[in-house]
Formats: sequence, C-alpha cells, structure tokens
Amino acid sequence: MEIVTAVEQVKQWSRMHRANGESIGLVPTMGYLHEGHVSLMRRARSENDQVAATIFVNPAQFGPNEDLERYPRDPEGDTAKCRDAGVDLLFMPGASEVYGPDFQTYVTVEQVSKPLCGGARPGHFRGVATVVLKLFNMFNPTVAYFGQKDYQQLQVIRTMARDLNLDVHVCGCETIREEDGLAMSSRNAYLTPDERKQAVSLYQALQEAQALYAKGESRPEKYVEVMRKRIEREPNTAVDYVKLVHAETLEDLDAVSGPVLAALAVKLGKARLIDNMLLMRTSA
Amino acid sequence: MEIVTAVEQVKQWSRMHRANGESIGLVPTMGYLHEGHVSLMRRARSENDQVAATIFVNPAQFGPNEDLERYPRDPEGDTAKCRDAGVDLLFMPGASEVYGPDFQTYVTVEQVSKPLCGGARPGHFRGVATVVLKLFNMFNPTVAYFGQKDYQQLQVIRTMARDLNLDVHVCGCETIREEDGLAMSSRNAYLTPDERKQAVSLYQALQEAQALYAKGESRPEKYVEVMRKRIEREPNTAVDYVKLVHAETLEDLDAVSGPVLAALAVKLGKARLIDNMLLMRTSA
Repeated sequence: MEIVTAVEQVKQWSRMHRANGESIGLVPTMGYLHEGHVSLMRRARSENDQVAATIFVNPAQFGPNEDLERYPRDPEGDTAKCRDAGVDLLFMPGASEVYGPDFQTYVTVEQVSKPLCGGARPGHFRGVATVVLKLFNMFNPTVAYFGQKDYQQLQVIRTMARDLNLDVHVCGCETIREEDGLAMSSRNAYLTPDERKQAVSLYQALQEAQALYAKGESRPEKYVEVMRKRIEREPNTAVDYVKLVHAETLEDLDAVSGPVLAALAVKLGKARLIDNMLLMRTSA
Repeated sequence: MEIVTAVEQVKQWSRMHRANGESIGLVPTMGYLHEGHVSLMRRARSENDQVAATIFVNPAQFGPNEDLERYPRDPEGDTAKCRDAGVDLLFMPGASEVYGPDFQTYVTVEQVSKPLCGGARPGHFRGVATVVLKLFNMFNPTVAYFGQKDYQQLQVIRTMARDLNLDVHVCGCETIREEDGLAMSSRNAYLTPDERKQAVSLYQALQEAQALYAKGESRPEKYVEVMRKRIEREPNTAVDYVKLVHAETLEDLDAVSGPVLAALAVKLGKARLIDNMLLMRTSA
C-alpha cells in the first residue's frame, strides 16, 4: 500500500491506472476507522482493479461549535486497517493541501441538504459535497463507497453526481452495527460506558418503527411518538430530531406511502449520534 | 461536424476520443456567434485533436428581469460558423436536457463573483460556474477556451478549476473588437444605429485609462473620473460601474500597483454592455 499526502500524487496515480483501463474504487473517510469503513474497503476491493481510501477530517463540514478539534484520530491504527483491507493507495492530506489560502468555491445541493441534519448543522452538507467533489476530481473513481448510516450524506452525494453529470457510480452500503444494534460510528468513542448502554435505544426505536410499518400503520406522527418515547426512556438522551420522511426527497410525509425512511439524531453526553432505517413491508 | 442534443452522446464522444489518447478543446457559448467566438474555435482547432463547441442559452445565469427570452438566437447561422471553424462536435441541448426536473446543485465561487457584475447580477456567476462545471464533466476537455471580454467570468472559472482540482486547462483569449474598437458581443445586436455609434465610448474610455497608466498615474479615482466622463459624454449611456481593480482578486485598489484591470458596464438602450482592459506599462 502506497501512502501519499499530495493531490498531485493522487492525480498521477489515478491517470496511470485509468489509462491502463483499470477501474478505481474510492472510499472517502474521516479516519478513526471501524468495521463500517473496513466493510466499504473490502467491497471496493472485491469490485475494482485498484482501491483508494482517504483519511481527511474535513474542516469545511464542521460548524464553529462542533467537534472538529476533538474528533478522534488514529493514523497508525487506520493505516494498518487500510493495509489489511487491501487498499492500494491511501491519501492522508493536511488541511492546507486540500484548501489553499484563497479557497472560495463551494458546492451546494439545495433541497436534500435542508431537512434532518441540515437544520442543526448549517453548512455541513455544503462542506461534504465540496470535499467529495474535490476527491472525485482527484481520483476520477469508477465507484465511490459510502455507508447508509449517513443516509442524508449519501443522498446529497447522489444528487450532486446526477446534477453535475459526474461519471462516478455512488454506491450506498449497508450500515454495520455492534452486536446490540448500535450503528458503528467514530463518534461512539465519545460515549461513557453508561451512555454506551443507553445508545442502543436509537436502534431499538428504529426497530419499533419497522414493526409499526410491518403492521401497516399509516400515521407518521404515530411512528415519531413511539420512537421518541423509546429514546426518552433513557436518562441521558436529548432528541435532536426523530422523523419519518420520504426516502428520496427526505421531506416530511403526510401519510405513510412509497419508500419511507425513519431517521433520528440524538445527543448523548458529548456525542451527537445519528441512525436511520429504510422501512420494509416485511420485517428484514 | 456532428451535431448532438443529448448529454449521453457527448459523454460517449468524449470517452471514445480520450480513450484514444486524443486531446479535446472545448468552446462553450450561448450562440449568436460572432468573430470573437469563432476565434476561440479556430484556436481550439489549432491546439487540439478534437474540437467541441456548445450553444446553450443557460437559464441559470439570467436574473428574473434580464434578457433570457429575447437573447438573440441563430441556430442555422451558428451551425455554419462552427462547421467553417473546424468544429468536430456541436452540442445544442434543450434546457431540460441540462437541468432535470429536480435539479438542485449549484457551484458558488465566492469572492471573485462579488465585485463588478456580481453586484448588478446576483446569481449570475453561480449560474455560469454551475453550467461550465457540468459541461466540463460531460466533455472532459483538455483545454477550454473563453474570451477575456468576459473577464470576471474567466476569473470565476479559473478559480473554480483550481479550487475543485479540475484537470482542464482554462485558456483566456484576447477580446476581438470591431474596427472602431467596440468589443464583439452578441448583445451588440440590441443597439440602434445611434447607440452603436455611442458604444465606442466604452473602448475609448479604456484607452484613456491605458494612457493614464502609461503616464504613471497612481490615483484610482483619477482613472474612474476620466473613464466615466468619456462615457457620459454620450447622451444615451447610463454607467452601471466604472472601476479600476486588482486583475486577480477584482477588488478595489487603494493605489495603482501590481496587475490592474480597468472594467466597465454601461447600459445603452436595451443593451447592457461590458468591456475591460488589462493596463500595461507601455501602451499595447
């Protein structure tokens, strides 16, 4: 595995392999890798000639009072995990390599950035779309892999790829969960042992929504009530949002029909955790 | 010359030629072609294996009270001019081929979009940057050619290319002028014969700025005064702006030093005309 820190090295690597007719699978991450990230790399490995991963804690997607400074980092452990997963090129740039001193160009995906996390995190998806487009332009990947845990992020990137006529295939991959169901996230590292136990309520709330859906419940407010109740049973949780939305537009539903997403964001101590579930007619 | 209207045809054409190792020169236009556009195509022809041109009156770069509906069009004449200039592929899409029904992704280049035309035309450069990035993604050009008459547009596109790590080389080409010095523009078609005569005042004002610069004048306000006076001598002109700015940032100057641009926008009857000149120590 080659490790590079300069954009120009990435471009040269990509040009060489694309000129050879090879496919490139790209896995962009912010590091502090867990089994969710690793599963994306393994999938990229199985589907492409070349696999690239990036580790970059992107300042542009953090708000002024968010956790940019204390976001967990583990470059050595991450490097080993990438190597084990079969990554060919690992890009670990510094912030100034990605954002030059006069940087001033941003990509905004309007509608799908607004609901859900868009409310509490203004500018977040602008930062995500911008850095992902930059990475796409550096790597020119055939396929790029993202986890469904960040469902809204995935929709933002899919919409950007469609609207800007990008050639990359954006692949959304299943959320990887701990044994008790908690979605894997680098931010789980913020949880105290007590908070960690309570965090399972996010997944359980989503399962209760799935059970309601399987029974044919049609009132969105009923889902929200049940999910919110499950989460608020835990003493340290503070709901940011609990929503039932259209799975593509992410807009609120008047009635439950079509593809439906249950989505939530919950503060638990120092962590703000998100999770979601696409509801299915038959329990998955 | 092949004429296509679908994005997918463009992508196939581009993939085929780039896979052959051929270079592609791209000339994006809004049509109603004049000698300025044609000079870009000829330059593209001389520097590339394949030459593509686009004719698309881009709704995203027009404000609600601007001239989108009455913008001059001449598809037959344009087609002949492209053929004569040696264009290989001409892309003439309809608006719905470029902007799908849920289109919602925009590129904003912040600082350089704000001064000059940015004030009178909010959203204009957002529309320009967005459509140009889409065309770059469709054509994957080696070089893209733009006229310096639209100097701020050129700076916006150059900044976007740098910030988003694009591989295309953005080439700014000399303004082509009528015999009396009026910069060629599709919007010159709006001028009555009387207004056409008065329009030469824009070029003459720039020449007077150049003469001041050659003499070593250091006060920006002096340039503005002289240019404004020359334009306002004509009875039908209304100055939108007359400015002396830094040639890269386009910001106002405290004193005349470094690369300097004289730039102006003037309303003349139904036309809003722009022109500019990079000032040189020795008269060009």
